[in-house]
Amino acid sequence: MIPPLSDLPREFAFIKRHFLALAGPAALELSDDAAVYTPPAGRDLVVAADAMVENVHFLPSDPPETVGRKLLRCNLSDLAAMGAKPEGWLLTLACPKTIADSWFTAFCNGLKQDQLLFNVHLMGGDTTSTRGPLVLSLTILGSVVPGQAVKRRGAREGDSLWVTGTIGDGALGLRVLQGKLTDSSDHLVNRYRLPQPRVGLPLHGLASAAMDISDGLLQDVGHLARENNVGAVIWGAQVPLSKAAQRCGPQWLETCLTGGDDYEILFSVPPQYDAKLSQNPVLPTVLGPVAVHKIGVLTAPEKGIQTLGANGEPLIFKQSGWSHF
Amino acid sequence: MIPPLSDLPREFAFIKRHFLALAGPAALELSDDAAVYTPPAGRDLVVAADAMVENVHFLPSDPPETVGRKLLRCNLSDLAAMGAKPEGWLLTLACPKTIADSWFTAFCNGLKQDQLLFNVHLMGGDTTSTRGPLVLSLTILGSVVPGQAVKRRGAREGDSLWVTGTIGDGALGLRVLQGKLTDSSDHLVNRYRLPQPRVGLPLHGLASAAMDISDGLLQDVGHLARENNVGAVIWGAQVPLSKAAQRCGPQWLETCLTGGDDYEILFSVPPQYDAKLSQNPVLPTVLGPVAVHKIGVLTAPEKGIQTLGANGEPLIFKQSGWSHF
Repeated sequence: MIPPLSDLPREFAFIKRHFLALAGPAALELSDDAAVYTPPAGRDLVVAADAMVENVHFLPSDPPETVGRKLLRCNLSDLAAMGAKPEGWLLTLACPKTIADSWFTAFCNGLKQDQLLFNVHLMGGDTTSTRGPLVLSLTILGSVVPGQAVKRRGAREGDSLWVTGTIGDGALGLRVLQGKLTDSSDHLVNRYRLPQPRVGLPLHGLASAAMDISDGLLQDVGHLARENNVGAVIWGAQVPLSKAAQRCGPQWLETCLTGGDDYEILFSVPPQYDAKLSQNPVLPTVLGPVAVHKIGVLTAPEKGIQTLGANGEPLIFKQSGWSHF
Repeated sequence: MIPPLSDLPREFAFIKRHFLALAGPAALELSDDAAVYTPPAGRDLVVAADAMVENVHFLPSDPPETVGRKLLRCNLSDLAAMGAKPEGWLLTLACPKTIADSWFTAFCNGLKQDQLLFNVHLMGGDTTSTRGPLVLSLTILGSVVPGQAVKRRGAREGDSLWVTGTIGDGALGLRVLQGKLTDSSDHLVNRYRLPQPRVGLPLHGLASAAMDISDGLLQDVGHLARENNVGAVIWGAQVPLSKAAQRCGPQWLETCLTGGDDYEILFSVPPQYDAKLSQNPVLPTVLGPVAVHKIGVLTAPEKGIQTLGANGEPLIFKQSGWSHF
């Protein structure tokens, strides 16, 4: 007799039980070696992969509903930075045997909500075991009109620097969870657990270069400047902070500017588009309009990266951002 | 001043130092948030993702040159099973800080060889840290003429079952490395460390269904049968074993049939193609011709999965294959 579902090898039963409800048509019901996907005609693909490790990118105490969504949203943020439309995603898990089955039920329920919000489906993946912490790796496929992907390279001296949303909330939210800071609202913790990827941001025809802010604003400005062989001035007082971040006090400014986990978009705007954006500094995204703020300007390369305070004084920080090595 | 390469955040310097030499044009010199890739016109994409964990899929003592190649080849095997042509790959690493930089040099040198052999390039990825074992996750993109991807579903009762190459070498190679078995040649260990993905196998127009054998032949025949609602008879004596596997003796047959790590292709052939393939049981691949062997037949579903010995007697094994759960 063919074994019924309960006699499936446990790994396959696990995959079907949790992930089949997320699978789109390309996934072939998650029963094949690979997904088969017809790319949208006349478009380029944009492909990104990001991994998250328990205790590095998320905490064991984080609600499982948000852990998968955070990873999906980090990848969506990579697509948003290039002006690409999400098409589908793949997931690999290296799972310690100590995680309860119900954890994965909640993990997938969270992902289901985001699939609806961002109109994407699971295409495939792999599930394996580890004696170490949970490691999740997600690959996302998006698409863009050929030639319209916005890249890190393309900015010039004199272009202004802009960011979407507010900076530092995620980094402060982590400090709240670590007990180093209190926040009477849930805003900061929510922003740490659930980044707001700016999918749909109309960067083409506006931005000369763009990237998403994941390693800390100052470090990521450094990446953008280095890729374009320019310097940058960041006006610290112009960096948009949420009300919750402002309430933490000025001693947390360094954390906001260097802490990472923002998943906002940093983009440079040439002078000919800057005035118009300054008049109406709001851009649409698939989750609704987002305010954008001018935070600095690209300078000659020999100026390096400078952060200035409200009175033009240089701000010096202990570290510029997050590195895994 | 713009920091020179040595002042790059260490993570970025690591990526450029090791992985830039693997990057293809889609990778944008690994400096963007995502790859931009123009899919081949008029073809479907085939996408697979597989993860490997230290001490689960490879051993810390395995040469670093083969670890990355093994993962790439497992993914290439997934493409081969569907008759797809490799296009590019992405890699995420969760690295313990204890691994020396020279390990990654050798790891990437191995991958470089396989990129030449299989004509693929790195498109992107992510590098992060972990306190646990090394976890590698690889996503591969391939392409196929629309409608020509061979799937697990499509087989019918009466179709014959075929495999490429030889079965059990990888599982025996692992036992050699574990000191449970000796092999005077390096054949078994080499097959464990470096699977031979059957990329280019002309399955379309020949096979009614196909999959790659990774969890053990018997378990994977079970998967294929279940997906097609049929049963199967496997003729144990017809399963092709290498000379090195034969030298181990008949007491290792169970390991060969259930051990996994084969990365050969299991495919079903309808009666109208079976005679011709039987006359000349050799098929081309991009690495040269490979012998194929008929090992059984698909039966009515109520027969279940049976393995028969040389005299038609049922062979009963303790386990049918590998599961991570």
